[in-house]
Amino acid sequence: MNLLVVDLGGSHASLALFTDGTPRASRRIELAGARGLEPLLPSLAEALGELAAGEGVSLSACAGLGFGFPGLVDAVRGRVLATNAKFSDAHALDLSRWSVESLGLPLRLENDARAALLGERAAGAARGFDDVVMMTLGTGIGGSAMMGGELLRGRHHQAGVLGGHMPVHFYGRRCTCGGVGCAEAEASTWALADLCGSWPGYERSTLAGLPTAPDYADLFRAAAQGDRVALQIRDRSLAIWGATAVALIHAYDPEVLLLGGGVMGSADAVLPVIQRHVHLHAWTPWGRVEVRAGELGDSAALHGLATLFP
Amino acid sequence: MNLLVVDLGGSHASLALFTDGTPRASRRIELAGARGLEPLLPSLAEALGELAAGEGVSLSACAGLGFGFPGLVDAVRGRVLATNAKFSDAHALDLSRWSVESLGLPLRLENDARAALLGERAAGAARGFDDVVMMTLGTGIGGSAMMGGELLRGRHHQAGVLGGHMPVHFYGRRCTCGGVGCAEAEASTWALADLCGSWPGYERSTLAGLPTAPDYADLFRAAAQGDRVALQIRDRSLAIWGATAVALIHAYDPEVLLLGGGVMGSADAVLPVIQRHVHLHAWTPWGRVEVRAGELGDSAALHGLATLFP
Repeated sequence: MNLLVVDLGGSHASLALFTDGTPRASRRIELAGARGLEPLLPSLAEALGELAAGEGVSLSACAGLGFGFPGLVDAVRGRVLATNAKFSDAHALDLSRWSVESLGLPLRLENDARAALLGERAAGAARGFDDVVMMTLGTGIGGSAMMGGELLRGRHHQAGVLGGHMPVHFYGRRCTCGGVGCAEAEASTWALADLCGSWPGYERSTLAGLPTAPDYADLFRAAAQGDRVALQIRDRSLAIWGATAVALIHAYDPEVLLLGGGVMGSADAVLPVIQRHVHLHAWTPWGRVEVRAGELGDSAALHGLATLFP
Repeated sequence: MNLLVVDLGGSHASLALFTDGTPRASRRIELAGARGLEPLLPSLAEALGELAAGEGVSLSACAGLGFGFPGLVDAVRGRVLATNAKFSDAHALDLSRWSVESLGLPLRLENDARAALLGERAAGAARGFDDVVMMTLGTGIGGSAMMGGELLRGRHHQAGVLGGHMPVHFYGRRCTCGGVGCAEAEASTWALADLCGSWPGYERSTLAGLPTAPDYADLFRAAAQGDRVALQIRDRSLAIWGATAVALIHAYDPEVLLLGGGVMGSADAVLPVIQRHVHLHAWTPWGRVEVRAGELGDSAALHGLATLFP
């Protein structure tokens, strides 16, 4: 069975063709400067058609389109419910209709973090586990939870996916969601520039000399070279991710916590610290939660989207 | 149908006889100085027998004993899994066997916060709701969550009930559970004495002149009279409870958040502030979570325990 999948991210979209559960071809489209989702849809449809054609697969030989979206979605009705920042026009779009009209394919929509968890469970680090929490550290912080083999959804489709909006600092920074001290307002790539700018002594840090605002790879590199401000912000960020991990474990009672997202490109700087924090501070009298890096990286969500058509 | 119920709290046990879902007689036993649960069991059994006999009900005319415990429990197997502080011997006790041998009654065990939620849903402020989170503010902070009409339990029976152990201050105080910055380590009656003692200027507060360590009723009273330190600690505590409320709403996606526990004896000082915090800061694009005080007060768990024998 052939399937097309799209994982829409903050900075790019990943497209893939799966055949019998295996990725066969993929493509990445940069979205820098994109203003809303609607203007992107024609080029997405075109790219998906080309991707299939390049493998000699006609659209009519595909069973459907799996679509991962970075925001709150109603997977049952196939509608975007809300977004925080990018693609704010998406809730008004009928993506199912667009998929049928432009590709002739039925669409299944899923939140991107839920899709990543499904992918890691199908083909990655969560194989064999029914109780899984995933935390993705990137531009923002994403979350998803599976309990007893089922994705947690909740009455309004937002259970499990607000891991980045757990308040870990009750007198903390304002978040773009309206919250105070949300994990992603305290320690995510989007928050980093602002955090650095207000950090005492930042102007003397090597980070201040970079041509663009630092991301976490820059920060970990500077910290490894002994930059004092980088060390301080690194340790603060790790403590925040540790607290968020504990919050998710306390909330959902998993066997395993997966870490994913772009920041895990620096997994050596992150994973052991979160593991130690969880083992010291999570209250799990039954034993220890396994803390693992996702195995599928950027393609976790693509793999998960390919499981939506059983 | 007659049922006996026991709600074991930190400072006292509440006992009741229910007939056809209605409380018929109740009794309170002070537990000050209690050293573990096992030494209490004979007097509990005796008091339960007396309570029934006082109403002319024989134990053999009762259908069972509902037992609420302040800690992690496996409700399916009827075992205490872990406690934080009091009754640390409970996990080694076979309470089902005790109930059968001393009262001739089958026992159903439940976490006290889950029982309180069941009670409020059966006969209190959560009637008609299937998606409910309860936060109890008292000696510690308790939590419980119902999603789609079912109590959330989780793989190791601890989902939903660790609301007091959501980290709301990532560089915060050590909690008795091993965590850092847990809600109840930052703002609960047990944490209050320590918090007051280390508060700058506390020695000049009217609270410092009280004969015993202040509880939240004392604190709210002093704040209402303009005591500066009391105002500061009150506002900090309210911010922490607000953050905890948002964490629970973000985790479980409820329609209604119930507030209970002894601190809600000062509901006028708490409820409007938490309502405002939630409506300002919880990310719920579908609408507004109702924030309500529980209606059953101390007897919520007793009512819930009476629903365990359908």
